[in-house]
Amino acid sequence: MKEVPASGAFRQLEPGPIVLVTTRYEGTPNVMTMGFHMMIQHAPPLIGCVVGPWDHSYSALRATGECVIAVPTIDIARAVVEIGNCSGDTVDKFERFGLTPQPARSVAAPLIGECLANIECRVVDSVEAYNLFILEAERLWIDTDRKERRTLHHCGDGVFAADGDVLDLSEHMVKWRHLPR
Amino acid sequence: MKEVPASGAFRQLEPGPIVLVTTRYEGTPNVMTMGFHMMIQHAPPLIGCVVGPWDHSYSALRATGECVIAVPTIDIARAVVEIGNCSGDTVDKFERFGLTPQPARSVAAPLIGECLANIECRVVDSVEAYNLFILEAERLWIDTDRKERRTLHHCGDGVFAADGDVLDLSEHMVKWRHLPR
Repeated sequence: MKEVPASGAFRQLEPGPIVLVTTRYEGTPNVMTMGFHMMIQHAPPLIGCVVGPWDHSYSALRATGECVIAVPTIDIARAVVEIGNCSGDTVDKFERFGLTPQPARSVAAPLIGECLANIECRVVDSVEAYNLFILEAERLWIDTDRKERRTLHHCGDGVFAADGDVLDLSEHMVKWRHLPR
Repeated sequence: MKEVPASGAFRQLEPGPIVLVTTRYEGTPNVMTMGFHMMIQHAPPLIGCVVGPWDHSYSALRATGECVIAVPTIDIARAVVEIGNCSGDTVDKFERFGLTPQPARSVAAPLIGECLANIECRVVDSVEAYNLFILEAERLWIDTDRKERRTLHHCGDGVFAADGDVLDLSEHMVKWRHLPR
């Protein structure tokens, strides 16, 4: 995987892909599936996400203040759903789903080798009323060699729309030339 | 358009489509393009979104506490981009882009006749540090007759991925049967 500026995290998350979130707590890595997330700010790149006490990853995220947001593609769709339907308190999900944890640079949570992009994140704030975490994206890794790049968009109930046709309307983006390239 | 339970709003927004947001302030409707939004809670349905003082709609949203989130599809992609690249302080965007404002039921902001879905929303909270509004979805309207249903996902710089293949993995969603149908 190749590191690119973290300011490009919005290109991975604004399109609304279902994502995986890794943590590492007392030495043990875990991974969950997440669909409630958004970009909050371009620079520095801030991300909002909902992780609640009902998620086994919640205590890890609270205690360590670190995670990795990994962007999976259609080739591991079934694993993405099944990761969201079992819990790290009884299952080693990296082993069960054949995912390869790789060392991150700034956080202890692992990157996922099988994902298109991995974003190393640090908790910078939270809004407890909504179990809303505010994360800063610190490092961004992209698997530039991978052929399959279609991400998944959750339409509810385990139904997903994969990325289809690409439209380039960049010539009409006259007001936003100042955003990070 | 047909009204369906607002609890289904997550099916429209969790997939991360680029959306339009309408407001009505002192009688004048306006519309902006938005990509920084997320679901925050299923029931009651809460939505987070970033609208800042740099957006002409910000003062309308602050003053009225009401908006409509409309979900456009690929047939109006160019209008979606151009709406995000001009401002309601100088342009009547409904007129310029040929959009049809339709009366909503619970809010003064208009529905957009050309969109696949329209969600009537009320501001229930905000986090000023991030220009983050917490909206409750009060009513949800779907154009059940429309053929073109492919939404758009913004990958940055005016490049969009449209919805492509659909994957039904609902049989693997064993943990989440309690979510609103």
